[in-house]
Amino acid sequence: MQDVSSLVAEAREGRPRAVARLISLVEGASPQLREVMAALAPLTGKAYVVGITGSPGVGKSTSTSALITAYRRAGKRVGVLAVDPSSPFSGGALLGDRVRMSEHASDSGVYIRSMATRGHLGGLAWAAPQAIRVLDAAGCEVIIVETVGVGQSEVEIASQADTSVVLLAPGMGDGIQAAKAGILEIGDVYVVNKADRDGADATARELNHMLGLGASRDAGDWRPPIVKTVAARGEGIDEVVEALEKHRGWMEERGVLAERRRDRAAREVEAIAVTALRERIGDLRGDRRLEALADRVARGELDVYGAADELVAGVTG
Amino acid sequence: MQDVSSLVAEAREGRPRAVARLISLVEGASPQLREVMAALAPLTGKAYVVGITGSPGVGKSTSTSALITAYRRAGKRVGVLAVDPSSPFSGGALLGDRVRMSEHASDSGVYIRSMATRGHLGGLAWAAPQAIRVLDAAGCEVIIVETVGVGQSEVEIASQADTSVVLLAPGMGDGIQAAKAGILEIGDVYVVNKADRDGADATARELNHMLGLGASRDAGDWRPPIVKTVAARGEGIDEVVEALEKHRGWMEERGVLAERRRDRAAREVEAIAVTALRERIGDLRGDRRLEALADRVARGELDVYGAADELVAGVTG
Repeated sequence: MQDVSSLVAEAREGRPRAVARLISLVEGASPQLREVMAALAPLTGKAYVVGITGSPGVGKSTSTSALITAYRRAGKRVGVLAVDPSSPFSGGALLGDRVRMSEHASDSGVYIRSMATRGHLGGLAWAAPQAIRVLDAAGCEVIIVETVGVGQSEVEIASQADTSVVLLAPGMGDGIQAAKAGILEIGDVYVVNKADRDGADATARELNHMLGLGASRDAGDWRPPIVKTVAARGEGIDEVVEALEKHRGWMEERGVLAERRRDRAAREVEAIAVTALRERIGDLRGDRRLEALADRVARGELDVYGAADELVAGVTG
Repeated sequence: MQDVSSLVAEAREGRPRAVARLISLVEGASPQLREVMAALAPLTGKAYVVGITGSPGVGKSTSTSALITAYRRAGKRVGVLAVDPSSPFSGGALLGDRVRMSEHASDSGVYIRSMATRGHLGGLAWAAPQAIRVLDAAGCEVIIVETVGVGQSEVEIASQADTSVVLLAPGMGDGIQAAKAGILEIGDVYVVNKADRDGADATARELNHMLGLGASRDAGDWRPPIVKTVAARGEGIDEVVEALEKHRGWMEERGVLAERRRDRAAREVEAIAVTALRERIGDLRGDRRLEALADRVARGELDVYGAADELVAGVTG
């Protein structure tokens, strides 16, 4: 296997093979990840991360593809991470999406990758920020994280992004669904796609009304805009990019961007630390210390809290 | 508030008010629990814990009531813990059950208590063993833990018991359901209740067939018996008690009882230790250490694993 430092050096030059290899290490929860992340850290923190969520059928992939085109026209390098939290396999479910984005396949300024999250929801929280870091280090100036699926995963994707875009389409009862799914709290920018269809104005109006009742996730003076698009024809996409840039500017001005990134990093660090501590306890189980303590508890010689204290001391001593 | 040592002394004499008060401390996750458990520990380890699970309508409460009668006839003090993992409230959903057990209300040798588990499943793993310890210290020789609800909670109740009884009734499609719910792996004794109804023999036969295909949870030479009862008339209850005693004897002979109790204690101690470590990390968040680390990660000055190492060192140092 290629050593980590040369892999990172190649990824830094934007070589697709090296980027793919590093994301595979993330996906597979490789023991080398620690070394990979240490090597990547100084190269990160420059990319702008956009999350795209929405029910199946609203046009997420088409919108992503149109956004890629717009950003490429502006000369930006773009990375796309399509995450499927419901699938333990990468690629499979996203084959159709890849076809929809195939126009960018030969563009060396675009890197598109689908990623599975090992079949469990928690995997997303682990894998997505690490994969984002790979793309960031590889020089992607804009990273679009798109989710396949609904519900909890949307909220999680939104929490990984600097700016979160919620996509809706007319006639899907999305307006009403929105409140239930809690997406009214996660969107920084709302897009009503397929705006050439009947009911687009009604959907936008209803959404506007509901947004007026609620509050955005950082409850400041940012009022999420609603943009109407026909992504398949590229209509309204420039307005979406404009809304994104405006939100980014607002976040930078108010210090919200740094705050969101710090919060994200804090959750990630905490999760890794808790896992490390759990593993240490697991090691104690291996060397029979926990078993011996449990035996004394079962005999009534020691109470559970006293035993837990000894276990903690064994881990921390 | 009454001090813990006098409360424990009163509970030890079997005073219902003190027992109730201690279980309420468990239910409310009182900060005094540590002191309570330390005081109770030397008084515990004598009770025999029987878990009763089964779908709604199979007759769990009626069977429990009949078992109480049988054990009382043998002169044993009995404790009953009715756990409702789906309800954040204690008592409410179990009112009907209490009525069904009301014949024992005036018997000072029986203590019946319903317990909520704070609305989340994990609460059961915490609260049940502690409540069992209260009843054990109060001199209950047999403790019946009965669950309201299905699925995951059944497996959890079974893991808290020395012997696990799975209740079925004819004509409820339970035989087929059983395999799905995984109850074929958790039962030490199976009871087909309402055996005077059509289909009781078929249910017992189907169950017998399926048990022949699978394996009991300690996959030793114990073959779970199937007992037919009509609990409402007390029929077959002596046979259930006999099966329980036989299982208990088998466990003692093979060392399985001590092993099960040690495993239970180990899981409990581990859960408390992990929570304690998590709380320490939470304290670090309070003193801004995590925030400072996250800030360095967000800036690319430090990688996540390095930050997690520092966090762990802060907890364990």
